[in-house]
Amino acid sequence: MSKGIGKHQIGDSFEGFVLIKEANRGVTSTGKPFLTLILRDATGEIEAKLWDVTKEDEEAFIAEQIIRMTGEINQFRGKAQMKITSIRPSQPTDGVHVSEFIEKAPIEREVLMEKLTEAIFEMKNATLQRIVRAFIKKYQEALLTYPAASKNHHEYVSGLAHHIVSMLALARELHILYPQVNKDLLYAGIILHDLGKLKELSGVVSTSYTMEGKLLGHIPMMVEEIGQMAKELSIEGEEVLILQHMVLSHHGKAEWGSPTPPLVREAELLHLIDLIDAKMNMLNRALENTNPGEFTQRLFAMDNRAFYKPTFDDDL
Amino acid sequence: MSKGIGKHQIGDSFEGFVLIKEANRGVTSTGKPFLTLILRDATGEIEAKLWDVTKEDEEAFIAEQIIRMTGEINQFRGKAQMKITSIRPSQPTDGVHVSEFIEKAPIEREVLMEKLTEAIFEMKNATLQRIVRAFIKKYQEALLTYPAASKNHHEYVSGLAHHIVSMLALARELHILYPQVNKDLLYAGIILHDLGKLKELSGVVSTSYTMEGKLLGHIPMMVEEIGQMAKELSIEGEEVLILQHMVLSHHGKAEWGSPTPPLVREAELLHLIDLIDAKMNMLNRALENTNPGEFTQRLFAMDNRAFYKPTFDDDL
Amino acid sequence: MSKGIGKHQIGDSFEGFVLIKEANRGVTSTGKPFLTLILRDATGEIEAKLWDVTKEDEEAFIAEQIIRMTGEINQFRGKAQMKITSIRPSQPTDGVHVSEFIEKAPIEREVLMEKLTEAIFEMKNATLQRIVRAFIKKYQEALLTYPAASKNHHEYVSGLAHHIVSMLALARELHILYPQVNKDLLYAGIILHDLGKLKELSGVVSTSYTMEGKLLGHIPMMVEEIGQMAKELSIEGEEVLILQHMVLSHHGKAEWGSPTPPLVREAELLHLIDLIDAKMNMLNRALENTNPGEFTQRLFAMDNRAFYKPTFDDDL
Amino acid sequence: MSKGIGKHQIGDSFEGFVLIKEANRGVTSTGKPFLTLILRDATGEIEAKLWDVTKEDEEAFIAEQIIRMTGEINQFRGKAQMKITSIRPSQPTDGVHVSEFIEKAPIEREVLMEKLTEAIFEMKNATLQRIVRAFIKKYQEALLTYPAASKNHHEYVSGLAHHIVSMLALARELHILYPQVNKDLLYAGIILHDLGKLKELSGVVSTSYTMEGKLLGHIPMMVEEIGQMAKELSIEGEEVLILQHMVLSHHGKAEWGSPTPPLVREAELLHLIDLIDAKMNMLNRALENTNPGEFTQRLFAMDNRAFYKPTFDDDL
Amino acid sequence: MSKGIGKHQIGDSFEGFVLIKEANRGVTSTGKPFLTLILRDATGEIEAKLWDVTKEDEEAFIAEQIIRMTGEINQFRGKAQMKITSIRPSQPTDGVHVSEFIEKAPIEREVLMEKLTEAIFEMKNATLQRIVRAFIKKYQEALLTYPAASKNHHEYVSGLAHHIVSMLALARELHILYPQVNKDLLYAGIILHDLGKLKELSGVVSTSYTMEGKLLGHIPMMVEEIGQMAKELSIEGEEVLILQHMVLSHHGKAEWGSPTPPLVREAELLHLIDLIDAKMNMLNRALENTNPGEFTQRLFAMDNRAFYKPTFDDDL
Amino acid sequence: MSKGIGKHQIGDSFEGFVLIKEANRGVTSTGKPFLTLILRDATGEIEAKLWDVTKEDEEAFIAEQIIRMTGEINQFRGKAQMKITSIRPSQPTDGVHVSEFIEKAPIEREVLMEKLTEAIFEMKNATLQRIVRAFIKKYQEALLTYPAASKNHHEYVSGLAHHIVSMLALARELHILYPQVNKDLLYAGIILHDLGKLKELSGVVSTSYTMEGKLLGHIPMMVEEIGQMAKELSIEGEEVLILQHMVLSHHGKAEWGSPTPPLVREAELLHLIDLIDAKMNMLNRALENTNPGEFTQRLFAMDNRAFYKPTFDDDL
Repeated sequence: MSKGIGKHQIGDSFEGFVLIKEANRGVTSTGKPFLTLILRDATGEIEAKLWDVTKEDEEAFIAEQIIRMTGEINQFRGKAQMKITSIRPSQPTDGVHVSEFIEKAPIEREVLMEKLTEAIFEMKNATLQRIVRAFIKKYQEALLTYPAASKNHHEYVSGLAHHIVSMLALARELHILYPQVNKDLLYAGIILHDLGKLKELSGVVSTSYTMEGKLLGHIPMMVEEIGQMAKELSIEGEEVLILQHMVLSHHGKAEWGSPTPPLVREAELLHLIDLIDAKMNMLNRALENTNPGEFTQRLFAMDNRAFYKPTFDDDL
Repeated sequence: MSKGIGKHQIGDSFEGFVLIKEANRGVTSTGKPFLTLILRDATGEIEAKLWDVTKEDEEAFIAEQIIRMTGEINQFRGKAQMKITSIRPSQPTDGVHVSEFIEKAPIEREVLMEKLTEAIFEMKNATLQRIVRAFIKKYQEALLTYPAASKNHHEYVSGLAHHIVSMLALARELHILYPQVNKDLLYAGIILHDLGKLKELSGVVSTSYTMEGKLLGHIPMMVEEIGQMAKELSIEGEEVLILQHMVLSHHGKAEWGSPTPPLVREAELLHLIDLIDAKMNMLNRALENTNPGEFTQRLFAMDNRAFYKPTFDDDL
Repeated sequence: MSKGIGKHQIGDSFEGFVLIKEANRGVTSTGKPFLTLILRDATGEIEAKLWDVTKEDEEAFIAEQIIRMTGEINQFRGKAQMKITSIRPSQPTDGVHVSEFIEKAPIEREVLMEKLTEAIFEMKNATLQRIVRAFIKKYQEALLTYPAASKNHHEYVSGLAHHIVSMLALARELHILYPQVNKDLLYAGIILHDLGKLKELSGVVSTSYTMEGKLLGHIPMMVEEIGQMAKELSIEGEEVLILQHMVLSHHGKAEWGSPTPPLVREAELLHLIDLIDAKMNMLNRALENTNPGEFTQRLFAMDNRAFYKPTFDDDL
Repeated sequence: MSKGIGKHQIGDSFEGFVLIKEANRGVTSTGKPFLTLILRDATGEIEAKLWDVTKEDEEAFIAEQIIRMTGEINQFRGKAQMKITSIRPSQPTDGVHVSEFIEKAPIEREVLMEKLTEAIFEMKNATLQRIVRAFIKKYQEALLTYPAASKNHHEYVSGLAHHIVSMLALARELHILYPQVNKDLLYAGIILHDLGKLKELSGVVSTSYTMEGKLLGHIPMMVEEIGQMAKELSIEGEEVLILQHMVLSHHGKAEWGSPTPPLVREAELLHLIDLIDAKMNMLNRALENTNPGEFTQRLFAMDNRAFYKPTFDDDL
Repeated sequence: MSKGIGKHQIGDSFEGFVLIKEANRGVTSTGKPFLTLILRDATGEIEAKLWDVTKEDEEAFIAEQIIRMTGEINQFRGKAQMKITSIRPSQPTDGVHVSEFIEKAPIEREVLMEKLTEAIFEMKNATLQRIVRAFIKKYQEALLTYPAASKNHHEYVSGLAHHIVSMLALARELHILYPQVNKDLLYAGIILHDLGKLKELSGVVSTSYTMEGKLLGHIPMMVEEIGQMAKELSIEGEEVLILQHMVLSHHGKAEWGSPTPPLVREAELLHLIDLIDAKMNMLNRALENTNPGEFTQRLFAMDNRAFYKPTFDDDL
Repeated sequence: MSKGIGKHQIGDSFEGFVLIKEANRGVTSTGKPFLTLILRDATGEIEAKLWDVTKEDEEAFIAEQIIRMTGEINQFRGKAQMKITSIRPSQPTDGVHVSEFIEKAPIEREVLMEKLTEAIFEMKNATLQRIVRAFIKKYQEALLTYPAASKNHHEYVSGLAHHIVSMLALARELHILYPQVNKDLLYAGIILHDLGKLKELSGVVSTSYTMEGKLLGHIPMMVEEIGQMAKELSIEGEEVLILQHMVLSHHGKAEWGSPTPPLVREAELLHLIDLIDAKMNMLNRALENTNPGEFTQRLFAMDNRAFYKPTFDDDL
């Protein structure tokens, strides 16, 4: 069996099981039907073409189907493309499961949950702690499964929890460097800031936006939900308003989706920590696949920049 | 007694009762205390200087106090300024009340309420009607009293109700011209779109922003409140989501405070009707005080434009 | 015979007469010539491929030719595409005319002309009326035939007249709601504002920009023409200048093609009415082809938004 | 008699005749009237204060009045300000005329006219030449008198002609360097491009915008006038359209007032030459009053930059 | 003796020694000279007026002079202003020194130097370490004295070193959280990134821009100096180029002064760390002077936002 | 043999020698390999397809190989494309050299060098002259060979020298029109402003960006190099700083790559001259290939405008 899809190089041949993420029917210039498939495994994804398909093929090779295939990796318009040479649907006897073909956070979900719990345990402000606990309880399963975004950063299983835990670690250190910072407030903001995504995104496998997500967006949905939770818990006091403000303002600017900019120190810091962790996630993953002395592909969410990996990076 | 403050001209003398809207103490370059007052009556407002004030004066002439005064209207840096020549606080025997000194909508509150009720009565969609009725019931008194904004447009008593009623009339006609429009949805959106201002603004007399208003803003507050109201009324269904979307998107663009732009036909129309009514309110009031053949003052909320009043305006 | 082109669905077969709007020759990767045709009828348009064409085909199947054809509707890169299976030019005995294949305004041109005449008849300002009458007389035929734009909104036969008549109806109601508005001026502005398009656009069938249109644009051309018309009619007075200003400023901002922004109340209103009617035309037509519970295609001229059609739209 | 106003330094005393450009009445904090005057002579202008004025003073010291005065130049908020110590209106016997107090182009109007005539004489395209000649004839007197702008560049008597003549010299050289350029077209564009300012600006002494200038602007007015002139001269042909395009596009971008950008080589060049000559005029005049090793004042129309004058400027 | 200037409240009287930071002569409306002084001590600064000054006063009370004074703190246009009631220059016998009146970093310079040395000692890449050591050696004295900016953040004695040391602490933690980061490179970038300010700014007491600073700016100056230093040390290799890139790109965007954006992971991180530390410095200092439940003044360098200090800030 | 590639028209057949500029392998939808070649000669370039290639073809037809071929020019997606019908690598006996297939400046390099020398000879300021001479000496060969940019303007052999010489001619005339301009400074700025491109660009044949070019850019590299050169020549004085400023600011704005805008008259002029010469180069070359009465292709670097070539262009 070949190495994973994400490790391919142009010219390699490929053999193994992969998951069909998307399947679209096309017709060649000479009128013959073919399928354009997006194939993926835990290491990455690739576009593939299946030529001269029959009606049966069209029905067999659909999204979320696992297949066994052989093929060759070519270059098409500057991007890698798999040319499929043989293909069949996986069978129960193959013993493969969807979960094997999906990228996961580099940290186990149990560890992520543990670190979340630790942070909540550190909190001293009872009001903030109660609200946070209530949310964790309500959404625990989804929170440990969902990606942090449909693309760009932390777009893998447990991505959201990974993002939160990484931000909490950063917050802990920033609180030491700037002791004026209200750590409880910052922790609460970090844990809640993106929970609205659990309603905005459709799920883990082929992540898209829900109708609610499109018409409201995760930020106003979460602001509302904090208000409701406070009602349910009969919590009053400034903490609720400030938490809503932190969620509302965490994109930093109206143009970026926060109708109110951060107006509380911890809200500003939440925005900055979110930025750093998202960017480091994107950069680290792009540079991991880049050789020293070379540039990464252009990264759309980093202003379309291509980053250079210095040659002296490892020779300290 | 003189004509109202808003009808003054440079050089006029003035005698009568006015309300102090703001009072600030200053010290002249030679070290003598004075008061800068903003005076207002139902016709407009003006800055005034009271020179050589005593401790007693400072305590007597404060915001929301009615005074009897004489003065002279001068020009200072291109703007009118009242020079106070005599002044005394009003007394019970004067028989004047604060309400006489505040601008009001040109339509009586009873009539505004009637027109609101009529519009609700026209609605056929029971869900939308129930939500709207519940909000009107909850906020009736404030809704009939509040301005629509702290400045720029409909910034007078009952301004919000006036704005809503004016928009409803426009909506009724647009529905006739474009019968595809869902009138009930548009009506509901119009009535609810700015109710968040009842929490965002401090009140009628010296309107400012509440802390909640500054940290969240009227749009996210109202989106949340629609959700809560639906819960209380046990209403489910797409109407709730679409109403939240209409409120959320009614500023039209992220830069203008709507993190999601209008994505429903009636939401787009709500945004446009809001724009027209606000602009016509500003323009009509500015042109009312302008002679044919002249330009208005620069209108800040109209991109700082000065508008021309044609000479043939009335000679049809 | 099949239903119209605009009513197709992927997988349908098609048989009937259509008009060739554009024809371009291509060569396949194996060196064989083919034609890419844009076909249209009164209901819509579609791209089509005609493979393995002969020299004779290339000469026969050209723009503005009506053809009889059979084909099948496939999907290509997410868009519908017709695969032609048989094709022949129409013959006189087919009894079909170009006019049958072009979209028309939903209102008859006689009705549009009547409504225009009515509006002019309502005008009391003799000067404005004379200018407007003179333009209607000069351009009557073109005005009743031209689209309002080459794409985006009212891009069909009589589209310009439809747009004007629709705006006039809106103006009539706005004048009732805001009686300060000078109705005659607003009517005159509406009728004249886009007449420059009669020189800017090439015509009705395959609308493109004239050289004059590209180098000057319809706004400066119309400003000039109002000046000339006034000279010819020996009309003097502020009305001429204000009408020129209304045309000049009706795009609202320099970035949108109006070097001077609206500085007269009716000019501002003209801009807003133009906006509303253009947007409602785009939205209504896009939503007409969308099922409740779904989103329209992205609408380029509406900031590339896809609009949602609520499911409760019709169940009032 | 002192040196001119523009040559003053803080602390200087001043004695002589000056022209009142603007006069505004104010009232001191202690209620006493005073006048704020803008005084000018051919070398520059300065703000002045006249304290404790009588009714007679207010009537005597008005805009466009010449006065004889003594005073002292102080600094007020970082700017020079004249404190008037004595003042009287000029009398016929003083033998002074308004024209002595207004800045003039550094080149005599006869010479400017000569150079204009020369350029027209160089033109070979009869059509362009006829149009240009007709305009020069129509506007000769105003053209030789008007400034090129109300402020910023060439804002002095004959400023427009000076600007045109300077641009023509630049055009002559550019045509030699880039012989593909159509010199006649470029010359015609240069001579006509700003003639609309003769209608946009009120005149020479206290230059302001006319109503026509505010509502239309010099660019659309001149586009119209070229069309009319061509009609009067019965000239047809592409030259007219291209000339209108050159005027229309000479500000370069929609945001800067040209609804169509330059789409003809000579139109682009016209825009660039206009830019260079305006900027060099501003820079040269600002640096003339600056010592080597120092920075100029901030120049508003140069993006608010302060320019440095090198110390080695003269020691070549 | 009173508490420091930065601790004043409106209405307080003040007595003690202060430093004149700036002195400007003015003339009152009645022609009398006065001085506007900016006074400062280690706790803050305030504007002051000295009325009816003599020639001697003007010569005595100049920038960088220490004075002994009494006065009263009034409000003027919403800002505090000192009214001086008595004043005299300090005398040798007063035993006061300029250094007492200037704000200093909250950490001693010896400690700052120690922490800098530690960080350099941690570095393993010999090339980067040699360059950094050379710069520290060259600029040690200035580096430990200069502010990090002329205003906004770390604008106090040792501000630059304080900023660097604070960023290094942040970098150390980020390297632990994201171990892919090249710590040596990040440390080197942090230490060098703003050293160009030692040439861009004039010094510590009345910090302004040098001519070189205005015409080149600290970024290009430092890029050049790294190149020169490498030459002097005969260092070659990618480290030099990457260090220059880090300095060049550390403002993040062309609009903010970095002609090349960060294209190396550590350069992006340097930009983000710089942002966080500057913002936290501004926020912490503004909130230190704000009561819980209130907003700070508007902070110009934080997009003019006023920040709220929650009331539960301290009650964990 | 056919006319050059740049003179082709759709439908022409072609026979002759061309240079392969780029070669990329692709696979057709039916799995067959093909090559996409960019072919060029001194008159222009064209994309070509070579179908059904063998392993040998792939090795033979690579970048920088000269080939002899026949083909036919078709249209593909609105652009010309060569269909190759026969092809072979050139042989020594063909007597063709790479230099024949590369576009060159329209002026010989000897003439360019002469004109450069002349300009330097005109300079009177010894300091500026010494620096300029030293750079010319250091870079003479590259300077006479390199293009001025990798695309858009002067992108041909000796393009940089051609650009400089053209700008010098313009500067000479501007100095006559505006004698206040320091000609020596302007000359020095022109000659040095783009020399950094000799390090930023990879060379002449297939021009790309060097790593140094990507990470620093030609502007900061050249600022640094001027500093080093001055050190080497032991030159001190303001000339060095001002020259660095001229190079640094010559793109005019931060957004365009100049962190400091021009703050010296000659720097502003350098920016404007650079703009004019680059634009005229693009326009003249685009219009050369356009017939009167037609528009050029859209020019990306001219804001994507298509320019019109008047019909009366040559009939003066």
